[in-house]
Amino acid sequence: MSVSHAQGFRAAGVTAGLKASGRADVALVVNDGPLKNAAAVFTSNRVAAAPVHWSRQVIGDGRADAVLLNSGGANACTGAQGFQNTHASAEKTAELLGISAADVLVCSTGLIGEQLPMDKLLPGVEAAAGQLAHDGGPAAALAIMTTDTVPKQAQFSGQTNGREWKLGGMAKGAGMLAPALATMLVVLSTDAVLSPEQLDAALREACRLSFDRTDSDGCMSTNDTVILLASGASGVTPEQDEFQAALTELCQDLARQLIGDAEGASHDIAVRTFNAASEEQAVLVSKAVTRSNLFKTAIFGKDPNWGRVLAAVGTVPEELASFDPDRINVSMNGVQICRNGGIGDSRDLVDLDPRLVTVEIDLAAGDAEATVWTNDLTHDYVHENSAYSS
Amino acid sequence: MSVSHAQGFRAAGVTAGLKASGRADVALVVNDGPLKNAAAVFTSNRVAAAPVHWSRQVIGDGRADAVLLNSGGANACTGAQGFQNTHASAEKTAELLGISAADVLVCSTGLIGEQLPMDKLLPGVEAAAGQLAHDGGPAAALAIMTTDTVPKQAQFSGQTNGREWKLGGMAKGAGMLAPALATMLVVLSTDAVLSPEQLDAALREACRLSFDRTDSDGCMSTNDTVILLASGASGVTPEQDEFQAALTELCQDLARQLIGDAEGASHDIAVRTFNAASEEQAVLVSKAVTRSNLFKTAIFGKDPNWGRVLAAVGTVPEELASFDPDRINVSMNGVQICRNGGIGDSRDLVDLDPRLVTVEIDLAAGDAEATVWTNDLTHDYVHENSAYSS
Repeated sequence: MSVSHAQGFRAAGVTAGLKASGRADVALVVNDGPLKNAAAVFTSNRVAAAPVHWSRQVIGDGRADAVLLNSGGANACTGAQGFQNTHASAEKTAELLGISAADVLVCSTGLIGEQLPMDKLLPGVEAAAGQLAHDGGPAAALAIMTTDTVPKQAQFSGQTNGREWKLGGMAKGAGMLAPALATMLVVLSTDAVLSPEQLDAALREACRLSFDRTDSDGCMSTNDTVILLASGASGVTPEQDEFQAALTELCQDLARQLIGDAEGASHDIAVRTFNAASEEQAVLVSKAVTRSNLFKTAIFGKDPNWGRVLAAVGTVPEELASFDPDRINVSMNGVQICRNGGIGDSRDLVDLDPRLVTVEIDLAAGDAEATVWTNDLTHDYVHENSAYSS
Repeated sequence: MSVSHAQGFRAAGVTAGLKASGRADVALVVNDGPLKNAAAVFTSNRVAAAPVHWSRQVIGDGRADAVLLNSGGANACTGAQGFQNTHASAEKTAELLGISAADVLVCSTGLIGEQLPMDKLLPGVEAAAGQLAHDGGPAAALAIMTTDTVPKQAQFSGQTNGREWKLGGMAKGAGMLAPALATMLVVLSTDAVLSPEQLDAALREACRLSFDRTDSDGCMSTNDTVILLASGASGVTPEQDEFQAALTELCQDLARQLIGDAEGASHDIAVRTFNAASEEQAVLVSKAVTRSNLFKTAIFGKDPNWGRVLAAVGTVPEELASFDPDRINVSMNGVQICRNGGIGDSRDLVDLDPRLVTVEIDLAAGDAEATVWTNDLTHDYVHENSAYSS
């Protein structure tokens, strides 16, 4: 199941006492091989957490044997002590598994600016190592949750020349889903036989088309990490195209699960820009809309306010996207409420009761398109983020 | 008073019935000369309202005799009909005042995507022309309000070689205060003797240091306009430095009034970045923080969450601002809660009860500084912007 769906992986999730709630907070994912190939992408935030600094070093050689994850503390902005703590937890993991600490990736999520309680974390690592199991994926998915209300998991089984290979993954993140990435931790695993270079290329392309087009609240975390591990245990090497398609779809599935559980949201909003001069321009225009608080509050209020869509589109500078404001059409949930930059069909025809909202922006400037996902801005978002120190 | 404080100006504000609330909605400001010099800056939004397109043409020759303003409708995204309506209202104003329509600036604010009811607007223009008075500034300031709860006005009297000259102004805007400008309409007037070129240079510099550093909710309006009119009626030509200082201070005063009355806000937040490599870099870093919804909700919750400040600062790319994340200090209301990118003094020492919050970010990268103003993100912001179609 989940991150332990593919052959060659074991996982576990335990309660170490890092969270005041008493819920599970330490997860471990182990690659038993025979391959130990891996790739990872990290937050582009310059204020990066200690585990991000650590894991960037670990992934340098394209090998990772295990991933240790904790919720209940981000270990970000914690200085030299924070880095030593990450190092110590990797050493502990390595010692328990008989591997090298230099092959242990570490991820943390929770409050920034506080040291992790090592007297709780290290026994937690020991407990997790003791519970590693081939069906441990769901327990691991639970242990990485913060304000998530449900665990996020996905899996895929493919065939190449009649032989099966698998792909699985877990994710967490319910806020800070942003520009590049979010705190958003994702661990993906496959038993396909792929080199570190193949994994890296596939992971970057999949992220570009999934998590990078997911922007819940425009805020970029200090801890974002997406990891892909390959055990090679299936003995199968799928075609790169085939693997890419499956990986991208799995990441899009997890990204949709993140949006569907975003903090306080009452709508999932797909902003699709089409007839753009390039895919990049379509992404920029969609992101201008997904960043607009006025647009997001309007959707919360079930107000099909296309003027706020156009006002957001208009903020994209001419040198970054070609379009004539007087030729733009905008539809919401299938009703073309803005035609040629002006008044279209009646707003009253738009039904914004369903959780899913589709906004389609026709730039009349080419034939490229892209969709960016976001959420509405609600009272519950303000409540959760003003009351919960994260 | 207000926009009619300086000699040579008359103003009026009347109720034409554009607003459902029955409040005043049409304002007129007239420059009686002898000079009719003027300058203006407009929204950089590519989706610009009809009155913005019109006024850009009017200001081309550096002359403006009158400004007609209405609330109760933005006249944005209204196509050819919208432009004809703006033109017709300028013609009506010109006819009533015996001037040329090509010298009448027009500003509108309110809901995007609906035509103005000309059967109400034109009689309103006539009523306003009939009520023009030297003490009409306050009535005009009331008539341009939308969700503003109080009118915004400022005035200044200076002396050059023993002779007095004056400067006055009014502003509206309580949301959409943004990147470049916001709907935000501002009319400034002076009786100093200044050329259109001098007015233009002074206005751009004053805006750069006031409205451009005011970002309530990151949203940029289709209608933003700031106008400066000079009547020359004092016969005095102040030193350019002296005039610049007074104009900048007046604009900063009005900008603070806008922040102080922003939709649903419970805190006014000054984000000052200092020890930056350049003023531009300080502005970029401050704006990254003023755009963070997570930071803004934390302030609403009176949570001195410096981790969210650092996470926002870290989103500024290396090529745009030099700093070492491990050398950054952050203070809130005088308490240094983050030292060298890590934990500083206790959060418990920070008092976030007062409406005014000062966040100071020490980049340790130079000696430049800049302050950007914003508001917190509150339940009332979400309520006003989800319930009020604007």
